[in-house]
Amino acid sequence: MATTVEHDIEELVERIEDLLEEHRIDEIRDLVNRIRPQDIIDILERLDADSRRKFLSLIPSHYYIEMLSKLSDDTLYEAVIVKGVSKIARILADMPPDEIADILERLPVKTRRQVLALLPPWKMTEVVELMKYPPESAGGVMTTRIPVFSKEETVGRALEKYVIKYQLGLYDKVNNAYIVDSHGRLVGVVDLRTLMMVPKNKKIGDIAQPPPVKVHVLADREEAARLVVKYDLMEIPVVDDQDRILGAITVDDIIDVIVAESTEDILKFGGLIETVKGSYLTAKITDLVKRRATWLIILYILESITVTVISRFEAMIASVVALSFFIPLLTDTGGNTGSQAATLVIRSLATGEARLGDFTRIIIKELISSSLLAVIVAPIGFTISYAISLNFPVAVTVSIALASIVVIASLMGVILPFIALLIKSDPAVVSAPLITTVADITGITLYFTIASYLIGIIK
Amino acid sequence: MATTVEHDIEELVERIEDLLEEHRIDEIRDLVNRIRPQDIIDILERLDADSRRKFLSLIPSHYYIEMLSKLSDDTLYEAVIVKGVSKIARILADMPPDEIADILERLPVKTRRQVLALLPPWKMTEVVELMKYPPESAGGVMTTRIPVFSKEETVGRALEKYVIKYQLGLYDKVNNAYIVDSHGRLVGVVDLRTLMMVPKNKKIGDIAQPPPVKVHVLADREEAARLVVKYDLMEIPVVDDQDRILGAITVDDIIDVIVAESTEDILKFGGLIETVKGSYLTAKITDLVKRRATWLIILYILESITVTVISRFEAMIASVVALSFFIPLLTDTGGNTGSQAATLVIRSLATGEARLGDFTRIIIKELISSSLLAVIVAPIGFTISYAISLNFPVAVTVSIALASIVVIASLMGVILPFIALLIKSDPAVVSAPLITTVADITGITLYFTIASYLIGIIK
Repeated sequence: MATTVEHDIEELVERIEDLLEEHRIDEIRDLVNRIRPQDIIDILERLDADSRRKFLSLIPSHYYIEMLSKLSDDTLYEAVIVKGVSKIARILADMPPDEIADILERLPVKTRRQVLALLPPWKMTEVVELMKYPPESAGGVMTTRIPVFSKEETVGRALEKYVIKYQLGLYDKVNNAYIVDSHGRLVGVVDLRTLMMVPKNKKIGDIAQPPPVKVHVLADREEAARLVVKYDLMEIPVVDDQDRILGAITVDDIIDVIVAESTEDILKFGGLIETVKGSYLTAKITDLVKRRATWLIILYILESITVTVISRFEAMIASVVALSFFIPLLTDTGGNTGSQAATLVIRSLATGEARLGDFTRIIIKELISSSLLAVIVAPIGFTISYAISLNFPVAVTVSIALASIVVIASLMGVILPFIALLIKSDPAVVSAPLITTVADITGITLYFTIASYLIGIIK
Repeated sequence: MATTVEHDIEELVERIEDLLEEHRIDEIRDLVNRIRPQDIIDILERLDADSRRKFLSLIPSHYYIEMLSKLSDDTLYEAVIVKGVSKIARILADMPPDEIADILERLPVKTRRQVLALLPPWKMTEVVELMKYPPESAGGVMTTRIPVFSKEETVGRALEKYVIKYQLGLYDKVNNAYIVDSHGRLVGVVDLRTLMMVPKNKKIGDIAQPPPVKVHVLADREEAARLVVKYDLMEIPVVDDQDRILGAITVDDIIDVIVAESTEDILKFGGLIETVKGSYLTAKITDLVKRRATWLIILYILESITVTVISRFEAMIASVVALSFFIPLLTDTGGNTGSQAATLVIRSLATGEARLGDFTRIIIKELISSSLLAVIVAPIGFTISYAISLNFPVAVTVSIALASIVVIASLMGVILPFIALLIKSDPAVVSAPLITTVADITGITLYFTIASYLIGIIK
């Protein structure tokens, strides 16, 4: 449906692999010139390691300006190795300082220093200044290339300065000029389009609007994203402790933050101990295994509690084997309802819709809705278990256990993310696998405890 | 850390509840005037239904302009009821047509018609025009208030027109002017700041850049978002079949799309049959229960297959009770590894990093990494199961079953999202609960089949 000019990546990958094999270098160069840099990235991620290295060496330098910041960590490092640090430094020198800082931060320390030393001195100073701030902070994603004017200046004077610097390419694509007092403290903003339309002799301080919100340079970049979304901003000013303006975060960088953070949240929830930064396609298999195995091993240790609990009831299972049939039904119900509740809560906390103070409100809501769910699942559980076991006490046990597990697992799904928040951790570390496992332990214990009472009584 | 001017919502909610109870209307009005509209929304979501209705009636009309589009569906409808359709129509009349269309689309059909009929005629036409496009399409999120100039016009003439319309507030906050030929077909874009700096007598067609990408009016809004992220755009033009410009989507609306779509994906993956649109805090409990119960019931039907499978092995469990201890360990392993794999694949497909054509590439990657994981979990499984059961054949069975389940569940985690994509469904419908359940059925069958061979042989 989309009217775009994207190429068929799959076809291009094959063609380039063929051309590389036959060493038809000129034809590759020709082909590259007809592909957008952003599509080259898609191709790079799909080439095998060997062809990727060869292909990287054939891409012209001006393509790298558009590509570098979007490459996955592994491919970025490969590109630096293939092109050589001095060529990469020359490419970086033509890029805005915040992008240079982002790229350097993703390189190994030694390479980073080498490249940095090769940058023009004034550019190096600007980049080093930005690299003071952690990449996950507001300072780590801001641009310093914004128009800042004193409130005492006239509109005409400010515009003159603006036009010169704009034409020299010294500004990032920002919409506002930032107005400061004599101490550099942010006192207002002016939309640049408005600035171009008001009388030239006005004092700029008189036409400035108070800034809607601002963010501290060391605040989490997620906080900046949340404010931009909430207040529908096109950019947000970044200030220091004394309220002095240091830079601004533009909405296109906020998008990158939102995409990165929601990917991080989804991967954590899916049970990956660390995020796969950059690309899944180029991620090394050993890294993937390491990240997945860590969680699995932690869960095995927890899961052995469940196994031990069941083994305590060996005698009971031996006398009523049918009890064992329903173990997966019970554990899955716990995992599923717990995941549902956790998903709702984690997402609500991530978007900033819910806060720590909403705990009571949410737990009451969850208690009511999970009780209703329990009323729905109990008869279903009874029907399934009676149909299969034809054992009335077992069916009663299963349905009571199911109902209780639904309520308990849902409450756990709410409580665990809040605990994570309380201990200043990311609520998203409460993953589906963790909830499943915790729900298993409580669910199984409950099931066999109910069974030991009920089956004794009813039998 | 953040230097923001947000209020303590929790405190305000309590204060407003107290004031409402004591009918101190003037004090509430005073208080509201000191709170930003965006914070009022946070307060509304935390009030009980009764106070919310009372509070809604006390908020001044000009606040509604900022608030309406951000209210959850339920609160929006409540606001319309409390304020009355004619007052709401008057408020909407001051808003840009794309926002009006979005709001109307969230109201019940009858109310929508009533409000629409009360809008000024020229505004109504603009809004109805926009409402032709489905809300999930590019047309559903575009703005039509963009500067469009003929390529034959001079810069000076275009600027004159621009300034007049800008000052009348007839433009949305866009960065580009769109340049068309005599048939209205998009031929280029000009950055508005550049437009203000070039010689006035130039023809605008001569300074225009070719548009980097454009999106068809009926394309999915996710497609528009993907293009904006990939090509780092501040806005994307929307065109019809004949390539005629219809509007543009600005980056702040793209952010809303990204947040909404990733919320949708996360909720689906967490096992909620339909997304909780708008707010979790104000969502009706009955709606929440309905959305959660549907999935749970579907899964019960699938899960009864697992139960039936286990019941087939009743005799074997009766003779080796220890086999039943490890059922949750096996089913959880299947669910966890399957979820991990599915999370990676779904996210990769959602961001557009991976495509349908990458299936073979990904399945090979998953086969290798899950085999490595299998080698890691097998000895752990053996140790846990031998330590608890002190039964060698059981421990061997458990470890072989675990290793096989890791591989099979991982492959399923990859295959299911691709199947969803093939049948033109959203890969995110492959939820953690679904994978867990499918992995259970295969895992349990495998376990008892291995057991029936091994325990016969080794015993």
